[in-house]
Amino acid sequence: MSENLNETDVEKRRPHLPHIVVLGVGFAGLAFCRAFPDGLARITVVDRQNHHLFQPLLYQVATAGLSAVDIAQPIRVLLRKRTDLAVRMAGVTAVELAEKRVRLDDGATLDYDYLVITLGARTVYFGHPEWAEFAPGLKTLDDALRIRRRLLMAFEEAEVETDPRRRDELMTVVVIGGGPTGVEMAGTIAELSRQVLYRDYVSINSAKTRVLLIEGDPDVLGNYPPDLRASARRQLEKLGVEVMLGSRVKDIRRNEVVMPDRSIRAGNIVWAAGVGASPLTSSLGVPLDRQGRVLVRPDLSLPGFAMVFAGGDLAAAKDAEGCVAPGVAPAAMQMGRHIVRLIADDIRAARRGQTGARPNFVYKNKGSLATIGRSSAVAQVGRLHFSGLLAWFAWLAVHLFFLVGLRNRLSVFASWVHSYFTAKKRARIILDVDVADGDKR
Amino acid sequence: MSENLNETDVEKRRPHLPHIVVLGVGFAGLAFCRAFPDGLARITVVDRQNHHLFQPLLYQVATAGLSAVDIAQPIRVLLRKRTDLAVRMAGVTAVELAEKRVRLDDGATLDYDYLVITLGARTVYFGHPEWAEFAPGLKTLDDALRIRRRLLMAFEEAEVETDPRRRDELMTVVVIGGGPTGVEMAGTIAELSRQVLYRDYVSINSAKTRVLLIEGDPDVLGNYPPDLRASARRQLEKLGVEVMLGSRVKDIRRNEVVMPDRSIRAGNIVWAAGVGASPLTSSLGVPLDRQGRVLVRPDLSLPGFAMVFAGGDLAAAKDAEGCVAPGVAPAAMQMGRHIVRLIADDIRAARRGQTGARPNFVYKNKGSLATIGRSSAVAQVGRLHFSGLLAWFAWLAVHLFFLVGLRNRLSVFASWVHSYFTAKKRARIILDVDVADGDKR
Repeated sequence: MSENLNETDVEKRRPHLPHIVVLGVGFAGLAFCRAFPDGLARITVVDRQNHHLFQPLLYQVATAGLSAVDIAQPIRVLLRKRTDLAVRMAGVTAVELAEKRVRLDDGATLDYDYLVITLGARTVYFGHPEWAEFAPGLKTLDDALRIRRRLLMAFEEAEVETDPRRRDELMTVVVIGGGPTGVEMAGTIAELSRQVLYRDYVSINSAKTRVLLIEGDPDVLGNYPPDLRASARRQLEKLGVEVMLGSRVKDIRRNEVVMPDRSIRAGNIVWAAGVGASPLTSSLGVPLDRQGRVLVRPDLSLPGFAMVFAGGDLAAAKDAEGCVAPGVAPAAMQMGRHIVRLIADDIRAARRGQTGARPNFVYKNKGSLATIGRSSAVAQVGRLHFSGLLAWFAWLAVHLFFLVGLRNRLSVFASWVHSYFTAKKRARIILDVDVADGDKR
Repeated sequence: MSENLNETDVEKRRPHLPHIVVLGVGFAGLAFCRAFPDGLARITVVDRQNHHLFQPLLYQVATAGLSAVDIAQPIRVLLRKRTDLAVRMAGVTAVELAEKRVRLDDGATLDYDYLVITLGARTVYFGHPEWAEFAPGLKTLDDALRIRRRLLMAFEEAEVETDPRRRDELMTVVVIGGGPTGVEMAGTIAELSRQVLYRDYVSINSAKTRVLLIEGDPDVLGNYPPDLRASARRQLEKLGVEVMLGSRVKDIRRNEVVMPDRSIRAGNIVWAAGVGASPLTSSLGVPLDRQGRVLVRPDLSLPGFAMVFAGGDLAAAKDAEGCVAPGVAPAAMQMGRHIVRLIADDIRAARRGQTGARPNFVYKNKGSLATIGRSSAVAQVGRLHFSGLLAWFAWLAVHLFFLVGLRNRLSVFASWVHSYFTAKKRARIILDVDVADGDKR
């Protein structure tokens, strides 16, 4: 294998081209890598995972509707056609802006001419990291498989539990946070217990599972217009979810959610109340907003570092009215493509000894969609508001269309058609991968 | 939920019927549960997992061809139609034959009238349990996901490795054991690296991966006729596998297989050389063979315990010539159905105050199939021997036919058709579920 090239050799092949380092292959990073013109630069993309994750469907993996493989695609496969691009599976430990250098957790460093930071968001617990153990969040495939295991295990334990109080507790699920993730988790868990699992158990009636959705604000889906919020609430209640609005969570313990006026015992607690930017942002030394997002300039570059850009859920991109683009996939993709234009212009201008134009990023809101359950959803497209079955079909079409990779799209579609007509969930498999074998080989 | 029944109540519903406890829902246990006549007994099945696993395709999960969900089905779904049956997800800690009682790892005990022990086999290392860390076996979904992760991670590491010796080591895979599992693992890993991954990497040429198959006997697939063994060897070599016959493994260390005359460094070592019966057999106090299998009587009952039966990989069932039925799915299913007949006869005879007939178990060998890779296989049906594409189609048809559950069958078939024509593997996703959260909720 001596004729193999290592990465350094690849870089040497086009030493005259500027080097772009992209951190994170979520929607923003992937859109950047796909849209960047050929032949202008060498690109290195870094991600901790070997796959791009279609996060909008992660809740389906957590609730046993889809397999992990259905919503993930290897990054190397997605970017295979780019010969000017190298993929590196590693974590980022530091960005040294002054030195134009990135440090990786495998000890290597990468020097860059342009840096694109699209590391996304993670679950945050508002200063209560100890809650993570009792109320897992939903950001990665591993999170989803963990929640799936805990949900299914609760029914298994309830089936053989003889103490009726503990049995009721095991059959109670609390979802904290009434945003899109919380709404779809609560709705789908209610469906799972009422329409799917109820035939599986002899001793318990899983259809009697209590699903509670706790939201601190006066309504669910706070970013949606009032009529759609009300519709979402009604659709949730129709599925059997108890929606608790204006309710604050004071503390979370094992199997217990403590609120100012009461305490709820629950076998499963799911946290959908908070995401914050990747912790790396705090080490950059640039201004951040309260959620840790980088307060980028209107062109998405970092203040003081014109060659460094941030996009996706990690960037707080304000428009002329001071509104921040929302943390959704379409915004992330738009940012990724905006950064493409700036860097490509910059490189082309530099060749002529000029400076590239720097148009501001403008988020184009093409509409909002939130799903609640099988044939339940709300949708807003411009001035049009839909809910129920029609919104659900719109949601289905949009998500299938954007799901990366033909094979996955077909497989997911087949799973949905099957589960729609039979009310089955095929992924009800409890995995228990023990990865305590620290060494990877 | 106060009107819910717990398991004890269910048992009380038919107190007049004998209680059958089935330990393990592999091929033997599942065949038993599906074939046992309605209305004759109360059945309780116990399994550590919530799913029945289609083990013959486990190597496809390990080599990124199929998703875990594709080859697993929830036990409760498979046995849902039986109203006289309860499923219990628990491990078995002890069988107390004299007391007719089974102890479970959740502290409960089950009293039985009839006991069916079908706990299957596990990976054994011939007195070297320390090898397990360096050379994982392939018996469970978790094993398969672990091997998949290690295989894919080795290529990721090789891609950025600058030391050529370590890079060669990372790109070497040793499979130990030339039985059906070893042959299909070696063949499929060679395919994966040569036909699938080679387009993914820039610095390394994954097609140069060395795959070695080490077998102590003079040939692979020792149970097959000589012409098919030779054909299997040729097909493996055509895929690029280095077949080392008559080679003994002295020791296994991290990334190293030690043999009497040499030592091989390898980023991945897969153990396919030994399975033994579930460790529970040794606590039964009945005669076992060298692999720990129960030496059952000709009717599959335990010597001295006419109401206790063993079947599947855990039972050594000798025919009139002293040949033991092989550890394959068809034999396990035949044993499960044989035990059904004995117990059903016994219960019916007891109602008339008689004793049931006790016919001996006779294994009907309908043929043998072993796959080597895409369009490579060997097959024996009676006196007919096939190899190559024809054998592979036979293998495909048989495995799809027996794969439990329509949905999985379609999904697996779609995956295969897709990967056959595109030479892709859709499940190349590295999962890293951290299940160190001892408490399940």
